[in-house]
Amino acid sequence: MKNNGEKISAVPMRGMRDLLPEEVALRQSIIKKIKEVYTSYGFSEIETPIVERSELLSTGEGGDNEKQTFSIMKRGQSLDDIKNSSSISDIVDGGLRFDLTVPLARYYANNHAQLPSPFKVMQIGNVFRAERPQKGRYRQFTQCDIDIIGDESTLAERELILATSEALARIGFSDFLVRVNDRRILKGIVEYCGYDENERELVLVIVDKLDKVGLDGVETELTEKIPRPEQNSKMTALLREIMDKGENSDLFEILPPDIDAEVISQLRDLLTTANNQSEGKFRVNFDPTLVRGMGYYTGPIFEITDKDFPSSIAGGGRYDKMIGKYSSHDVPACGFSIGFERIISLLVERGIKPESDIVKKAVIFNADNVSEEFALNLSKIARQDGSIVITEKQKKNTKKQLDDLLVSGYGSFCLIDSEDDIPEFKEMK
Amino acid sequence: MKNNGEKISAVPMRGMRDLLPEEVALRQSIIKKIKEVYTSYGFSEIETPIVERSELLSTGEGGDNEKQTFSIMKRGQSLDDIKNSSSISDIVDGGLRFDLTVPLARYYANNHAQLPSPFKVMQIGNVFRAERPQKGRYRQFTQCDIDIIGDESTLAERELILATSEALARIGFSDFLVRVNDRRILKGIVEYCGYDENERELVLVIVDKLDKVGLDGVETELTEKIPRPEQNSKMTALLREIMDKGENSDLFEILPPDIDAEVISQLRDLLTTANNQSEGKFRVNFDPTLVRGMGYYTGPIFEITDKDFPSSIAGGGRYDKMIGKYSSHDVPACGFSIGFERIISLLVERGIKPESDIVKKAVIFNADNVSEEFALNLSKIARQDGSIVITEKQKKNTKKQLDDLLVSGYGSFCLIDSEDDIPEFKEMK
Repeated sequence: MKNNGEKISAVPMRGMRDLLPEEVALRQSIIKKIKEVYTSYGFSEIETPIVERSELLSTGEGGDNEKQTFSIMKRGQSLDDIKNSSSISDIVDGGLRFDLTVPLARYYANNHAQLPSPFKVMQIGNVFRAERPQKGRYRQFTQCDIDIIGDESTLAERELILATSEALARIGFSDFLVRVNDRRILKGIVEYCGYDENERELVLVIVDKLDKVGLDGVETELTEKIPRPEQNSKMTALLREIMDKGENSDLFEILPPDIDAEVISQLRDLLTTANNQSEGKFRVNFDPTLVRGMGYYTGPIFEITDKDFPSSIAGGGRYDKMIGKYSSHDVPACGFSIGFERIISLLVERGIKPESDIVKKAVIFNADNVSEEFALNLSKIARQDGSIVITEKQKKNTKKQLDDLLVSGYGSFCLIDSEDDIPEFKEMK
Repeated sequence: MKNNGEKISAVPMRGMRDLLPEEVALRQSIIKKIKEVYTSYGFSEIETPIVERSELLSTGEGGDNEKQTFSIMKRGQSLDDIKNSSSISDIVDGGLRFDLTVPLARYYANNHAQLPSPFKVMQIGNVFRAERPQKGRYRQFTQCDIDIIGDESTLAERELILATSEALARIGFSDFLVRVNDRRILKGIVEYCGYDENERELVLVIVDKLDKVGLDGVETELTEKIPRPEQNSKMTALLREIMDKGENSDLFEILPPDIDAEVISQLRDLLTTANNQSEGKFRVNFDPTLVRGMGYYTGPIFEITDKDFPSSIAGGGRYDKMIGKYSSHDVPACGFSIGFERIISLLVERGIKPESDIVKKAVIFNADNVSEEFALNLSKIARQDGSIVITEKQKKNTKKQLDDLLVSGYGSFCLIDSEDDIPEFKEMK
C-alpha cells in the first residue's frame, strides 16, 4: 500500500458527486414513473456502454459536447511510450459518452438485425461532460431518452410528444409548453434572408440565443460576427415580427414564401392534433425561432419549457442522417430527451418526497440478554407482511436511537429486553 | 464533421457490449427482486460517481484491480503538454471505479455526518476493469453490493449472509453453499506453519488457488516460489488433512492450537445459527482454505458457490481498517457482493425469462384511410386498463408484421382499416 498511514481525501473528483439515500430514493421513484409511461407506449429499454471508441465521440455529430469528452488512455503505456507518441490518438483510444443519441445510432447500426422496425427505444443512463462545474451542474448526470428509429412519418413525432408530455404530467408537471419548429423552416428563413451557405450555421447559433440575450443581443452579435448588414437587418426584422405576434396568432402566416408547403402543412397538422390530445394539460406552440443546438437535426425539433425554469426541461427532434454514418444506408430517426437533473432539481425545490407505502419497523434488542439469532428471527417474522424491518442493538441513548430511526422513516418499533419477551410493535411518538 | 462521408465502425469498444431489450428486461427484473429483499432488511441505496480521483484508485486497497484501472486524461492538454510532463500523474487525474467497496469507504468518510449509524447500504452499479476480454467477461460489468458500516459485532455478518442468501433464493437459486472463514484463522495457520511475515501474503495468494489447481498445484507453486521446504510441507499436510475430512466433520478441531479461541467461538456460533436460519434452502460451512483475494479483509470472509458454476457467485467479508484511510478514525465495516454477471449468465443458461404480467396490445392502422391522430387516440383508450399499447402503421406484409409483434410479446391486435371501424382486439394466433 503506497499511502500507508497517509490520509487520502474523501471528497469526490471535481464536478462529481455522491448521492445520499434520500436523493437516490427520489430519483428512482421519478424514474419508475417515467418508465411506466414509456413502457405503456411500447418503448423498450436498452443499454450501451459508458465507454465508447474515441472515433465515435469525435465525428462532429456531437457538436460542442465533443470538446467536453473525458478521454481514456490506452492501457499499459509507460511515460516513455507516451512521450514518443506522435499524436493524441496514439495515447487515447476511448472516452466517456457525452450523450445517449450518438451511441444509440451506433447501437442501431450494430444490432438492427435483432431489433424490430420501427424500433421504439428508451434509455436512462449517465453521460459525462467536462464542463466547468457550477452550482447544480455536474460532470456526470442522468439523461432519460426515448427514440423511434425506422419511422419516417410524423407518427414518430406525435408519439414522442405525447409520451414525453404524459411522463412529465405523471411526475407532477402541469401547464408546460411544448415549442415546435422544423429545421427545414429555419433553413428556409436563413436562405430567404440571403445568407451564404457557409454562414448559415453561425446565424442559427446566434439566433438560438434569443431566449437568453433578447433581440438586441442577437442583433449585436450578428453585426459583430457576420459582416452582412442587409441580411442581418432582414433577419432582425423577421425575428421582431415573430416576437411582436402573440402566442395565439398564426405564425405560419409570416414565414417567407419559398418554404416547402408540405413541411408547413405537416407541422400545422401536428400542432393542431397534439393540442387536441393534450386535454388542456399542456400547450403545443409553433416557434420559428427555436433552433436547438445539435447540428444533426434534419426535420421537426421540439423543446419543453416549464414556467418555473428558465431553460428547457426536455428537447429533441428528427435526425434522419445519423445512423447512415455507421450503416450502409440512412435510417429515419427521431428522439426526445428529458433533462432529468433539471426535473429533479425542480421537484426538490417544490418539496416533493419519494412516495412509499411500505411500513418500516425496527426490532431493537438488548444484546446483553438477547442473542443476535433471536432478534434476527423476530425481524424475519415481522418482515412476512411485506414490511421493511431493521434489526439493531439497543444503544445506551435509546431515545436518540428511536428519534434517529423515526427520521429514517421507521414509524414503529419493538424493544426486546429478554428472550422471554413477547414482541409487540409500538408506534413512535 | 471530420468523418463526413466515411463510414465509422458500429461495434462497441473492445471488451464493451450493447445490451438488447430482452437482456435489459431480464437484468432489471432480477435487480428488482434483489432490491426488494435488500430493502426489506433496511438497506438503503446510494450512488457514487463512476469517475474517481486517481489517488483513490491507487492506494493499494484495491489489490490487483488497481492495475486494471481505466485512466482518464486531464482535460485541455496539448500533445506538447503531454510530452513535457514528468510523470503519469501530470497527465492523468482520474479513473473509472473498479469496484464499489473502495468508493463506498470514501463516500462514508465524506458523508457520515448525514448517515445513520450503523449504516446499512446497498449499491447496484457498473464497475470497469481493463482485463483481457474473453467469452462472457466484459470490461464494464454490474456489481450488486450490500454493506453494514459501524457495527463491529457479528450481527453484521449474520444479516449480510441472511439477506444475500434470501436474495439468491428469491431469484431462483437453491441448494447453494456459503463458505465461511476468518482472516485471523488464516493468519494463525501461516504463522503456525512458520512462514516469515513477508512471505505470508504470497502463501495465501497460492493457497487461494486450491479450488482451481488442486493440492498438487498448490504444492508445486509453493515449492517454486517460496524456498522453505519445512514450512511448505507443514502447509501442504494441513491442507491435505482439511481436504480429507468430509464436509460434515468439525474442521475447527484440526486448526492449529494458538488461534484466538474467541475468533473460533464466534465463527462456530455464526455457522450454527446461520444454518438454523437457512431453513434447508442453503448450507453454511466452515472452510479454512477460503482466502478471498482482497488484502483489505480483517475478519470473517465468505463466498457463495452454486453447484452449476465453477467459481463463486457472491463474496464478501469484514474490512475494519479501510474507512480510516479517509477518515480521522477507523470504522468497522462488512460487505457482501453478488457477482451479478455470473448470476445472469447462469439464469440465461437455465432459460429464465423476465416475468411480466402486463398485457401487450398492438393498434395497427391503414395509414391511407386512418389519421395518425385517430390511431393514437385508440391506443390511448386501450392503454387505460394498464396495458402496453403500441401504435403501428399497417405494413404491406401484414402477416409478417403480426408475427414480429407476437415475438415481441404483443399477444393481441386491432386492425383499423377506416375511421368508421369499431376497434376490437383479437388474440394473435
